[in-house]
Order: sequence, then C-alpha cells, then structure tokens
Amino acid sequence: MGYHPSITKDSIVNPAAVVADTLNRAGIHRTDKKVYLIGSQGVQDELDNLNLEYFGTGPDPISRQSDTRPFIYDLELDEEVENVGAVVVGYDKHFNYHKLMKAANYLVQDESCIFIATNTDETCPGPNPDTVIPDAGPLVAAVQVASGREPVVVGKPHTPAFDYICHRWNINPDRTMMIGDRTNTDVKFGRDHGLRTMLVLSGCHQVDDIVDNQMNELDDMVPEFYADCLGALAPQRNRA
Amino acid sequence: MGYHPSITKDSIVNPAAVVADTLNRAGIHRTDKKVYLIGSQGVQDELDNLNLEYFGTGPDPISRQSDTRPFIYDLELDEEVENVGAVVVGYDKHFNYHKLMKAANYLVQDESCIFIATNTDETCPGPNPDTVIPDAGPLVAAVQVASGREPVVVGKPHTPAFDYICHRWNINPDRTMMIGDRTNTDVKFGRDHGLRTMLVLSGCHQVDDIVDNQMNELDDMVPEFYADCLGALAPQRNRA
Repeated sequence: MGYHPSITKDSIVNPAAVVADTLNRAGIHRTDKKVYLIGSQGVQDELDNLNLEYFGTGPDPISRQSDTRPFIYDLELDEEVENVGAVVVGYDKHFNYHKLMKAANYLVQDESCIFIATNTDETCPGPNPDTVIPDAGPLVAAVQVASGREPVVVGKPHTPAFDYICHRWNINPDRTMMIGDRTNTDVKFGRDHGLRTMLVLSGCHQVDDIVDNQMNELDDMVPEFYADCLGALAPQRNRA
Repeated sequence: MGYHPSITKDSIVNPAAVVADTLNRAGIHRTDKKVYLIGSQGVQDELDNLNLEYFGTGPDPISRQSDTRPFIYDLELDEEVENVGAVVVGYDKHFNYHKLMKAANYLVQDESCIFIATNTDETCPGPNPDTVIPDAGPLVAAVQVASGREPVVVGKPHTPAFDYICHRWNINPDRTMMIGDRTNTDVKFGRDHGLRTMLVLSGCHQVDDIVDNQMNELDDMVPEFYADCLGALAPQRNRA
C-alpha cells in the first residue's frame, strides 16, 4: 500500500467532480442555462473546469432586501427563473434564508430545473470533538422541505459517483473492492453496486456495528471483509 | 357568527403563546436558563410577556467569524451551553448557517436542552402566488438533521396547542367543534383530540380531499361535517 507514484491527483474522485459530471450528463452543457450554487470553493473549481456558469456563491446578506416586514414577500432573483438549469446544494457556511428562498423558487417555478445535492452528511468531523459542524445534509433538507423536490444525491452511497467512476476508469465490478470506514455510506455503496466490500475499523464503524446491521437484516451494510486499518493490508501484499 | 363583542384579543391563540406555555410547562421558568431563539417578533413578544430570557434574534452574520477557512471549526457561542435551557425554532428571515450551528451545538452538547418548533409548515402564503416563501418547516428540518434531535412541535395538529387551550378555557371536548380549512392540520388536530370537526371549503382543502383521505384510510383527516364557508353557519344560528 502507501502512496504509489502512479497514484496522482487524477486518481482521486471528489463529490464536486461528480456534481459537475452529473450536471453534464443531465444535459446542462447543451443549454445556455446557469447553475445556482449553494456551495464552497471545491464545487466552484470543478464547475470552472467544465466551463459551467454558476452564480450565488459567497455571502448573500438579507440586508440587500429593502423590505422591513418580517416575511419576505418579493424576492429579487439574481437570474430569471428561465435562465437557471440547476440548483446545486452542498456545504456552504454562507447559507441563509435568502439562499434557501432563491433555491426553492428556482426549483418550484421551473420543474425542469435539476436539483443536485453533493452529499447528505449530517455533520462533518473537526478538530474539536465537542463542536458540532453541520455539513451539507441540514442545508439540503431545508431546500428539500421548502421546494417539495427530491434531490439527486451525488455522494456515496448513491449511484452518480459509481457512474462517474465506471465512466472514467472502465472498472470491472467483479474485480473491484470498495474499502471504507463507514457501513452506511462506503459498504452500502459497494454492495449496492456489485463490488466486494471491506470495512476498516480505524474510522467510524466497528465490528459491533456490522453485527448490529446483520441482526437488523441490513445486509447492504454488512461488508464481506474487515481489517484493522488500511495499513493492515500491506504485509499481505508484500508476501504475495 | 361575525365578530361578537365578547371575542377579544384574549380569545385568540397563536403558536407563539403556546411556545411560551410549553417552555413554562417544561419547567424552564424554574431555572435561570435562557432560550436560544430562532424566530421573529411574535415569539419574542410572548416570551417577553412571560419574562423568559432569550437571545439570538435578528441578524447574526458569519462575518463576525474571524476564521477564513471554508469550514467553521470553532464556534463563539453567545452563551455557555450550560446556561441554555431551550432552543426554539420558528420562521426567521435572518436564519443562516451560524444560527444553525449554534442551535445544533446547544442541543447536542446538553441533552436536557429542550427543542421546540413553532410549526413545521413548509411554506407560507404571500401576495404573489408565484413566489415561494419558506416558512418554519425548512428551518426546523435543518436544525433537526444537524442535531439529530426531534423537536416538540407546538403548532396544529400536535398536542401542545390542545393542552394550552384546555388549560386556559377548561373546555369540554364532547361539546367542542374544531372548524378549519385544512384536513391535515385542522381536522387532524380535532380528531386526534376527541373534538367534533368541520372543514370549511373556502380555504385549502375541498370535498375531493376528504374523499381522497377516506379512500386512503386516513380517517384522522376526514371531518364529520363540512360547510362552504364559516359564514354559511350564520343563517342556521339565526333561525334557532
């Protein structure tokens, strides 16, 4: 194991790349339409790479609203509804009511507007274990409830990431193993898409979690193999 | 019908009053703890009436955060976790990621912190039928996902509003009718709490909706009576 020289930046897939690919597959590059993006730098970079036009990033304070009434009745949209082909929602520390309202209006006023979520993780890890850091999940949930629309979720365990990987590397599922540290995203992703699966115990989930899933008949979250950590595989390979 | 002189401001119940009452019943007035409030003026007024201390209302821009990294790892809380006895979430046009993160941290870091939602309506009506105005529902959903906690929902059809009414007027459910224009909130509220129910057809739901509910065995959303509108009851009373 370790970082083999053939593993370059291009060997790594991030959800942002899959978002851009999913937008492309949905045909957004064949239109002149723009993407309303609730998200941070990573997703912006990938959209830039594919020359997809987006708007809405960064702070969008409610103070721009001249209305002093508690409810916002009229919304000044940055772009006309008919020019917006997709709403993408990911982690965004500048998320606010204003962005929520814009996203909901683009999605409701034009049913053909695509709704993509980078992932639905509830929280993300940080240096201080006591501090809860909301991830994209809560923001996606808000847009979902306000718009009544279901997003295409790009992150594991959903299919867009698998489509992207297959398309890019032409993998053979029968000869591919999914290794990860979460039963509900990594293992499920592998099992749902016909791969062998291995859980490493150095992260989120442990053997107890596998047993729980087995007891609860959640077979799609039970890996075929497990190992203490990724490094534990190294001696096996060296002996081969 | 009409506005009888005996009907005063005190005859009207709004969710904000029920929020304050629910906080009181949960014992918050017996502590020195404060309420973290995501909400607008109506809820503030009712908490003021009961001398409950709250904080967090109005704009809370992320720019106060000196951190320029995309993720917010450290959160400067206005109040220490142990001083916060409840998080209340309602409609708030100043809702943002900062408020979401604070709410989640108060709720996760202290399990005894109460979580109350004024209502879970997805959107609210406005003067322009084309404009979607997100109501409290999307904001509550975001806090729920980020904190992994379930709120006590005060609005119809949930029980806190019924408790409040019973407590205040000592009504006899056998001699009380719930009249409203929505099957999923008003009629369900009445049926769940042992009242007679009447749907008026001048608002959201129609006879077709009653029939649909009946076909789908949603008996708790089927009223015993219906009328064209509230005014349609007047001649009957005059003849009596």
